[in-house]
Amino acid sequence: MSHLNIAKGFRFGGCASHIKPQSDKLDLALIVSETMCQVGAVYTRNKVKADPLLLNKKVLQDGQAQAVVINSQNANACAKNGMENAIREQKAAARFLDLEDSAVLVASTGVIGQELPVAQIEQSIDSIVLGHTLSSLLQAEKAIMTTDTVEKTASAQVVIDSQVVTITGLCKGSGMIHPNMGTMLAFIMSDANIDQALLQKALYENTQKTFNRVSVDGDTSTNDMCLVLANGLANHKKIEQEGSEYTLFKEALCEVMTSLAVQIAKDGEGASRLVTCVVDGAMSEAQAEILAKSIISSSLCKAAMFGHDANWGRVLCAMGYSGADFSVTDVDVVFESHAGSIKVCEQGKGLDFDEEKATEVLLQPEVTIHVSLHEGDALCTCWGCDLTYDYVKINGDYRT
Amino acid sequence: MSHLNIAKGFRFGGCASHIKPQSDKLDLALIVSETMCQVGAVYTRNKVKADPLLLNKKVLQDGQAQAVVINSQNANACAKNGMENAIREQKAAARFLDLEDSAVLVASTGVIGQELPVAQIEQSIDSIVLGHTLSSLLQAEKAIMTTDTVEKTASAQVVIDSQVVTITGLCKGSGMIHPNMGTMLAFIMSDANIDQALLQKALYENTQKTFNRVSVDGDTSTNDMCLVLANGLANHKKIEQEGSEYTLFKEALCEVMTSLAVQIAKDGEGASRLVTCVVDGAMSEAQAEILAKSIISSSLCKAAMFGHDANWGRVLCAMGYSGADFSVTDVDVVFESHAGSIKVCEQGKGLDFDEEKATEVLLQPEVTIHVSLHEGDALCTCWGCDLTYDYVKINGDYRT
Repeated sequence: MSHLNIAKGFRFGGCASHIKPQSDKLDLALIVSETMCQVGAVYTRNKVKADPLLLNKKVLQDGQAQAVVINSQNANACAKNGMENAIREQKAAARFLDLEDSAVLVASTGVIGQELPVAQIEQSIDSIVLGHTLSSLLQAEKAIMTTDTVEKTASAQVVIDSQVVTITGLCKGSGMIHPNMGTMLAFIMSDANIDQALLQKALYENTQKTFNRVSVDGDTSTNDMCLVLANGLANHKKIEQEGSEYTLFKEALCEVMTSLAVQIAKDGEGASRLVTCVVDGAMSEAQAEILAKSIISSSLCKAAMFGHDANWGRVLCAMGYSGADFSVTDVDVVFESHAGSIKVCEQGKGLDFDEEKATEVLLQPEVTIHVSLHEGDALCTCWGCDLTYDYVKINGDYRT
Repeated sequence: MSHLNIAKGFRFGGCASHIKPQSDKLDLALIVSETMCQVGAVYTRNKVKADPLLLNKKVLQDGQAQAVVINSQNANACAKNGMENAIREQKAAARFLDLEDSAVLVASTGVIGQELPVAQIEQSIDSIVLGHTLSSLLQAEKAIMTTDTVEKTASAQVVIDSQVVTITGLCKGSGMIHPNMGTMLAFIMSDANIDQALLQKALYENTQKTFNRVSVDGDTSTNDMCLVLANGLANHKKIEQEGSEYTLFKEALCEVMTSLAVQIAKDGEGASRLVTCVVDGAMSEAQAEILAKSIISSSLCKAAMFGHDANWGRVLCAMGYSGADFSVTDVDVVFESHAGSIKVCEQGKGLDFDEEKATEVLLQPEVTIHVSLHEGDALCTCWGCDLTYDYVKINGDYRT
């Protein structure tokens, strides 16, 4: 993580409420704005939705909120007293922050199906110390992590109406990652002054091109949620229509969301490398996306990347069963990384290539599978990771 | 494998043509009938199809053939001179067997994208010794195996018109298993006397309920193919319409196909256990199938089965993103095996259950995830396996 800019008027903090069995592990986080925020939200399309998501949908009927309370280790999904406990978590945060209940959003992540030990949250929340510093933000970030191995944050700044607008994002997500419309847990704070409907539109459209283009394991979570809170403190003239200023904001937001999405893919459970797939020369972005997602989601392509095996046949195989139309005999495949690039397939047939060179390219921590269809001008990039022994280890024994 | 009955008039054999690098490994198989057969065939729906499949479609325009030549280790898919080499493989077998080229079908399985060393096949095929014995059949079976660890054969007998009709099947398949309409390589021989269109219909309909309900890794191969050859030598009155005799034959065929399908799931690459998923109480078989397939295909459910972790939340999660409609609050989940059964979820919420008992149930080599929807009378069974370290190992390093 390089330098991080923090949006004006937001404070962060975390504490250990002992939902995580290790006594010192942070598992409860708060994010709060000085003033009421316009809020955009996208949620999982999984039919099974965790209760905090259902609660937030109610809270956000007016599109406004001022704080978010998040616990990790327990998803509060398919759990006893799920809605009741989500509301108790909301009320505990509202009391501590001296806000109306309806100003507080709730998020949970962790094991599905176990009752949330909400009494521990009620007892611990007062110990949270809120701050506007990087270390406060990282405390909140650490408190929302589950199998994540690194903190995931990003920021962007843009000048609107002569004022600097900052967008700061943090997220968690490592397994059960195959977002569909919503995302993992991601929280994005901005001091932008923007109409709520436009904020929602920017979030929704960017989600399609960022979080929804990541897959770690093909499993779409019950708890996926991305919230963006904009408190207006950057003090510029309010963005009330789609114009150049909206576009500036939307693109800066997209930059933050892309960075977070890539960080999630790179920290995929057990992953040893980030695998990016670019499909270009497509007739449409939709076609390119179906193909790129199928490639990064294929267990066999992912295992080949783990073994730095230039097994491009699996790439064509994954394209073939994706459901997208394309002409096999026009397809080129190139593997790329900082160590160089190597073309392994041309017009759908294998090339004689230098296996040693290919291994060198694929041994890097970030590799790209570059597919060219030679059919049109559209392209799409998706992100995933390799399939490793550690993915199996982490998920063979997650609850214990 | 228990006792195996071999259909009348079929001979089998295999040899080492040195496509597999180990000099003594069998990699070339022949199956031949004394007389011309009616043939049913289903193929992969992967858009990328191996050349042998395209050749067979031509051969089977009249629905007849008498022999199949199969090589392993090389898929002859997306490969240089693919069709030319498939035809050379066909011609070599036709010459050796003294048949018309058009009486010979070709199948290949193995690495995608490398040119088939067809000269080795042409040189080695004469060394095959054909026989009607179990050991001859197992020689052919061994020659078509790739990452398979056990032979997969099955047979069934049924009396039609006072004659015993035998159906004998052999197949291979361990990875890249997520058949869609076609299947892995499966060859089924019968001495039944049956109209070709009815044979094709029985094969196609049975495929939907057998091979197409298996998933090892979600990857649909480029080479999936299931052939059924019926030579009529059982000497009963020809089955020419859908009636009780057709039904008897179709059910016996389904028994063989189900056995082969389950053997493939159980021998999934790296698998340590067979995972069966039964979804009952559904409004329709189609709804039950979507849900059951989603569960057995979920990396997280599969890893939990490897870790004998009763993590039923992942089962509900996989149902939720399957696309099928159902009422979460009506769902019960029970884990079952020879060690007993344990209900872990009732009406969509977790039950307090004995974790030790659950572990004992899930430690068995064959476990069932039994989901009840309580909505109707339809049900579906699908088969898969767990996700293990060995799956990653096998596929991180397949080509070398």
